[in-house]
Amino acid sequence: MATLHQNGGARAAEDVNGNGNGHAAAPAAEWQFARAVKDGALAAAGDRMSIRAVRFKISASVDARDPRPVLPLAHGDPSTFPAFRTAAEAEAAVAAALRTGKLNCYPAGVGLPDARRALAKHLSSDLPYELSSDDIFLTAGGTQAIEVVISVLAQPGTNILLPRPGYPNYEARAALNNLEVRHFDLIPERGWEIDIDSLESIADKNTTAMVIINPNNPCGSVYTREHLAKVAEVARKLGILVIADEVYGNLVFGDSPFIPMGVFGHIAPVLTIGSLSKRWIVPGWRLGWVAACDPKKILQETKILTSITNFLNVSTDPATFIQGALPQILENTKEEFFKRIIGLLEETSEICYREIKDIKCITCPHKPEGEAEFISFGGDP
Amino acid sequence: MATLHQNGGARAAEDVNGNGNGHAAAPAAEWQFARAVKDGALAAAGDRMSIRAVRFKISASVDARDPRPVLPLAHGDPSTFPAFRTAAEAEAAVAAALRTGKLNCYPAGVGLPDARRALAKHLSSDLPYELSSDDIFLTAGGTQAIEVVISVLAQPGTNILLPRPGYPNYEARAALNNLEVRHFDLIPERGWEIDIDSLESIADKNTTAMVIINPNNPCGSVYTREHLAKVAEVARKLGILVIADEVYGNLVFGDSPFIPMGVFGHIAPVLTIGSLSKRWIVPGWRLGWVAACDPKKILQETKILTSITNFLNVSTDPATFIQGALPQILENTKEEFFKRIIGLLEETSEICYREIKDIKCITCPHKPEGEAEFISFGGDP
Repeated sequence: MATLHQNGGARAAEDVNGNGNGHAAAPAAEWQFARAVKDGALAAAGDRMSIRAVRFKISASVDARDPRPVLPLAHGDPSTFPAFRTAAEAEAAVAAALRTGKLNCYPAGVGLPDARRALAKHLSSDLPYELSSDDIFLTAGGTQAIEVVISVLAQPGTNILLPRPGYPNYEARAALNNLEVRHFDLIPERGWEIDIDSLESIADKNTTAMVIINPNNPCGSVYTREHLAKVAEVARKLGILVIADEVYGNLVFGDSPFIPMGVFGHIAPVLTIGSLSKRWIVPGWRLGWVAACDPKKILQETKILTSITNFLNVSTDPATFIQGALPQILENTKEEFFKRIIGLLEETSEICYREIKDIKCITCPHKPEGEAEFISFGGDP
Repeated sequence: MATLHQNGGARAAEDVNGNGNGHAAAPAAEWQFARAVKDGALAAAGDRMSIRAVRFKISASVDARDPRPVLPLAHGDPSTFPAFRTAAEAEAAVAAALRTGKLNCYPAGVGLPDARRALAKHLSSDLPYELSSDDIFLTAGGTQAIEVVISVLAQPGTNILLPRPGYPNYEARAALNNLEVRHFDLIPERGWEIDIDSLESIADKNTTAMVIINPNNPCGSVYTREHLAKVAEVARKLGILVIADEVYGNLVFGDSPFIPMGVFGHIAPVLTIGSLSKRWIVPGWRLGWVAACDPKKILQETKILTSITNFLNVSTDPATFIQGALPQILENTKEEFFKRIIGLLEETSEICYREIKDIKCITCPHKPEGEAEFISFGGDP
């Protein structure tokens, strides 16, 4: 915290108007803003639900005198290991965009037009319809994408369905927005598939959306086409939106190919959350997106897309020159890069799976087929 | 919006599970998320209070067939003009940080330790006490800095005092957080100084903070040391926090030197909002900060700093490699760069002031002495 200069502090205070230095340190109760800090949503979200806060706490609890090495199994960020450096083409594209000097300006709230257009084209290649640039909203990483969709949907009295296990930033952001959370279970014995029946039992007329994470974080499971179709059908039946978190999209190495939820956007509208972070191993670049996968234009008609635009107009943005590099990143990154990264992930996942099986207090009910933050869950200790 | 591929859409839907294509387009009322969109806080904040939305509306209202040139007086972003290119040292520092490949990782929520330390040292040079790195919270531009302080202070039943004229993002963010806004006037005849008496008349026991923008945006006025001391004294009397928006800090060219509000942090605690955006002309880099200028550690005692940490732990961040470049940017940028930029701003401001005086429907009661978004206000049309 701040400390007074040994000589300068008092003198400077006297300089002002002669009485600045006369105050004793005020006790906290005199300050009206002190009431702003309660054990409320902010503390709960930031302290107990934030994956970062939990990680920092775990790190801080390690005894530095203990000679045993600490393996960061819950690191979720391979970029710190030299083998996982991003594609040379991607790095070059960002450096070139910076060097033009023309992309230091404020971006449009929803993102640079060229970047939105390039991403619409890129995502459309896996869909049975074409996205336009108006369907794309660039965000400062997947974190801001989650913030946008939760903030836009949160209304008093409504609730949202979240997977358990899942990524706790959804719970944290819902707590900040006073959006009620209801959890549905993933079934380990069925490859962490969603318990579809439970969705119907916990939803009601105030349910606004459900979140599906595919490949799942933290389980590393990849959903089949058939399972995703069932999810879309139940969302349609319940009248809810599907938020498809696909930040690990395409990072798969098992038998199941990655199918984007947007393939079923004609059944129920889908807001897809994506990011450069995982596939390009650049979480620190903070470039993510929300894509409206909704060929029937229901999100446009219900003005959900207008709300997203409104929200982004008063929010921060991804750095403009990184946005400016997006068309080149998407176009120039070679298939060999992705193959090499997926190969590395598969190899390390195999080692982890094999070794964890021998640890008695941990069970791993389903071998991961996608990159994920954690690959196992505790059983009886 | 999304459009179906001419051939692919229906086929792909049939591929799925045979019944995906059977749905008619659902009317909006069937979808439960439709109720999320009301003419509520989000629409008001994004549409009517967002400076971007207003700018886009004005731009869209220009008749493209009209041959007269359009001058972007309300642009607020000189970076698009080639004369206002950022310092070569700053650009080189960011490129070098990117090229290391070591700063693609997730940053800590409050910012990279080295960047916080460098900024604490930089800001301390204008203060009568020393900030430590724990006083610094890096944000994704000034926009996220505003979001942090408003979100942390907003509690049901409390209110915040904002200047009129001021920067409308404060009103927008307060609306999103259901924080009541009360306006105090700036007095044009007194160089847009704050009407200190009015502060006392509009504040009550539920007032949590006041915002002071210096140099003022949009007025371009720079407050004297004596005026800032009076502000601190009234904040102390009212028991409220001072949020000092100094994103235009040091960009002054008149008779008044720039004095940071933190100089008076011993009278009332100050949260200073700053950014690389304006002084380095890189708003698109999205690197800002909140600095706790509070030598008596009241913000620490009242756990306001803990709340800021909690909030940032569930929020997005400035790009890691740009954070990583901050120490070099602060250390290596030459005084000549700032002198040249301020010279350019003064020159263009002089021209603007001179020409505007001849326009009958506009009055400019006080010549600007600091860089600002607008330099004039309408009188009788």
